[in-house]
Amino acid sequence: MEKVFVVKIGGNVVDNDTALHAFLEAFSQVEGKKILVHGGGKIATKMANELGIPQQMNEGRRITDAETLKIVTMVYAGYINKNIVAKLQANNCNAIGLSGADGNLIQAHKRVNANIDYGYVGDIDQVNTSLLTALLKVQDAIVVAPITHDKQGQLLNTNADTIAQELAKALGQHYDVELIYCFEKKGVLLDAANDDSVIAHIDKNKFEELKGTKAIFDGMIPKLTNAFAALDSGVKKVIIGHASALKQLIEGNAGTGITY
Amino acid sequence: MEKVFVVKIGGNVVDNDTALHAFLEAFSQVEGKKILVHGGGKIATKMANELGIPQQMNEGRRITDAETLKIVTMVYAGYINKNIVAKLQANNCNAIGLSGADGNLIQAHKRVNANIDYGYVGDIDQVNTSLLTALLKVQDAIVVAPITHDKQGQLLNTNADTIAQELAKALGQHYDVELIYCFEKKGVLLDAANDDSVIAHIDKNKFEELKGTKAIFDGMIPKLTNAFAALDSGVKKVIIGHASALKQLIEGNAGTGITY
Repeated sequence: MEKVFVVKIGGNVVDNDTALHAFLEAFSQVEGKKILVHGGGKIATKMANELGIPQQMNEGRRITDAETLKIVTMVYAGYINKNIVAKLQANNCNAIGLSGADGNLIQAHKRVNANIDYGYVGDIDQVNTSLLTALLKVQDAIVVAPITHDKQGQLLNTNADTIAQELAKALGQHYDVELIYCFEKKGVLLDAANDDSVIAHIDKNKFEELKGTKAIFDGMIPKLTNAFAALDSGVKKVIIGHASALKQLIEGNAGTGITY
Repeated sequence: MEKVFVVKIGGNVVDNDTALHAFLEAFSQVEGKKILVHGGGKIATKMANELGIPQQMNEGRRITDAETLKIVTMVYAGYINKNIVAKLQANNCNAIGLSGADGNLIQAHKRVNANIDYGYVGDIDQVNTSLLTALLKVQDAIVVAPITHDKQGQLLNTNADTIAQELAKALGQHYDVELIYCFEKKGVLLDAANDDSVIAHIDKNKFEELKGTKAIFDGMIPKLTNAFAALDSGVKKVIIGHASALKQLIEGNAGTGITY
């Protein structure tokens, strides 16, 4: 099967022009088919503040009211997505930028929660795999903004990590998929205080061992649980590491590789 | 040859929720392949005002400085484009929304003008016809925002009328293209003061006659000149009329049809 890389970058890359430029250069040079899922970063919050739209948070999570949805749609699917695409095009990487509404790429529903109304936040129902495979035949790269829709005309703000995971799972039936989560650390760390304590490889046994001995800090557990869920659904490999080392992550020379 | 409709709507539709809703319903029902090019409307200007970004105009034309480009990219390629796509998807019209940067759809260069610097405004160099034809095979509709790029990483604000015309011309080699300009009048009027004085059909002889007798008001001359330029470049028919009558425009029961 042909290889496809699904790479997720977060706000720490999107918000930093120098880091983003370097990352996009490395991403352009990745051989083969690739999908980039980008998060939002601080631009949307900054813009909401400038426009005087109060941002409500609940336990660290943003409540997406109608005005906030308007802003994240503009910033994520407009400003960030199109600037990334234009920069990839300048690197001769033939990228196309999409939201989840485009071609019904990602259909979702408004989150149902008895205790708190998160507003226009989407939980994913399905991915349009046939559109993805058709586009990957003619494009080098697809750049996905974290906005989905409910097929009833409503756009929805959706977690970029989850989008990356669902795209990777959907493509796993047709391609050898490697799912790469770029974050602000060099990989999964044995010691949260030591940036160089990266665990190079984690398989299921190692994960159970790490959980049992509490040799791994709590913040990593959900990431690893998600990684194994992706592997369970047909993703071949999950890699976690720093955005500045994309090439090395792919080559297995940096970050944490997660397989069975 | 298969038929493709290229339809342009302007701010008067985009700014009016009721009008936009009705238009998108009619557009969804158009049989066959179709491309919708949308202008910007007043949302960008409103947002610039709210953010305290002064808008410079020169002879009625907006100067697109860096901050204004950021806003039009967000509003046109983000907010407007994705909301239109989500609404078309709700109408079971499988639409995909693109800017000119996506898949290198529309390559342009920053306008060169010795007298005045219009800022980040793009004049079109080329259309990626093979991407359009590939997408039209798998999608019902393509929705194009009036943002292009220079292939050097720079996004550019670009006139939506010109984009519609260039897309129609590029597709004319592969499809029977009908180019439909929706505007705030019912069609080309004999008498600017009488909304019902629509000229149903204009060919080249009629156009010369109208220009000679000055039986047509000046504002229509550039639109008609552009229409004949499109016909010269392989577009089969140009139709000018009101957005509220899309079905009738296509059926030849409203607006002005322009052919040789």
